[in-house]
Amino acid sequence: MPRRDVYHASVKKALELDGWEITHDPLSYRIDNDQIFIDLGAERVIGAQKGTLKIAVEVKSFLSPSPLTDLQEAIGQFVLYKEFLEELEPSRIMVLAVPESAAPLFEQRIGQRLLKSQNFVVIVYDVTKEVISRWLPQIPKT
Amino acid sequence: MPRRDVYHASVKKALELDGWEITHDPLSYRIDNDQIFIDLGAERVIGAQKGTLKIAVEVKSFLSPSPLTDLQEAIGQFVLYKEFLEELEPSRIMVLAVPESAAPLFEQRIGQRLLKSQNFVVIVYDVTKEVISRWLPQIPKT
Repeated sequence: MPRRDVYHASVKKALELDGWEITHDPLSYRIDNDQIFIDLGAERVIGAQKGTLKIAVEVKSFLSPSPLTDLQEAIGQFVLYKEFLEELEPSRIMVLAVPESAAPLFEQRIGQRLLKSQNFVVIVYDVTKEVISRWLPQIPKT
Repeated sequence: MPRRDVYHASVKKALELDGWEITHDPLSYRIDNDQIFIDLGAERVIGAQKGTLKIAVEVKSFLSPSPLTDLQEAIGQFVLYKEFLEELEPSRIMVLAVPESAAPLFEQRIGQRLLKSQNFVVIVYDVTKEVISRWLPQIPKT
């Protein structure tokens, strides 16, 4: 299995262990307008639910040699998906899942700014133990 | 010259024709902290000034086969740079320069949402004529 898919599978197991029901994999919307087709499912965002709380989880593996490139990619997808979600299913909360190796990016000053300005919700996962280590800044409230 | 650089040169000329002084190419900041080095100059952001108004211009060529991928990349860089700018030089306004071919992305509903939610300022440029076609939503005020 490609490493990227290993991370994806690991996050699914971690979510289940944490009491989440995986409702969609991928969570997919198709938008048809005059100019572009956008299939959010191409990036295999996971849909999950716990009680009345619904989340859309963008799993990032941060496997490229440049953390900055990975961070930019993660931000770009996150912000774009979030805009679509707010249009299509505003009750679902967008969540970015990052491995422990990338957690420092979000715990430093610039990462803290992003969490605040973009209302980022981040899951830090342990890919080996297949568990959620922590939520940044915190788990969304139902 | 690679096509990407042609677009970069075209935007510089268009800015100058519009009365902007190119003050930095690239506009570069180096940030040193415990975890990462980030050189924003790697992406060759242009610094320009007109009167007291200072801008940082991220030039995107939108040359990949997928406009969605290009849009995500543009958003990721824009948002990250903007965070850095607000930390390092808050008076400088972040601007995204896109060719006419990509303008519809920002004139549609989702693009309009992005302009609003992210306070995006977009320059639409004509790469052949080397002119600025328009500003979205509008030119920043001094």
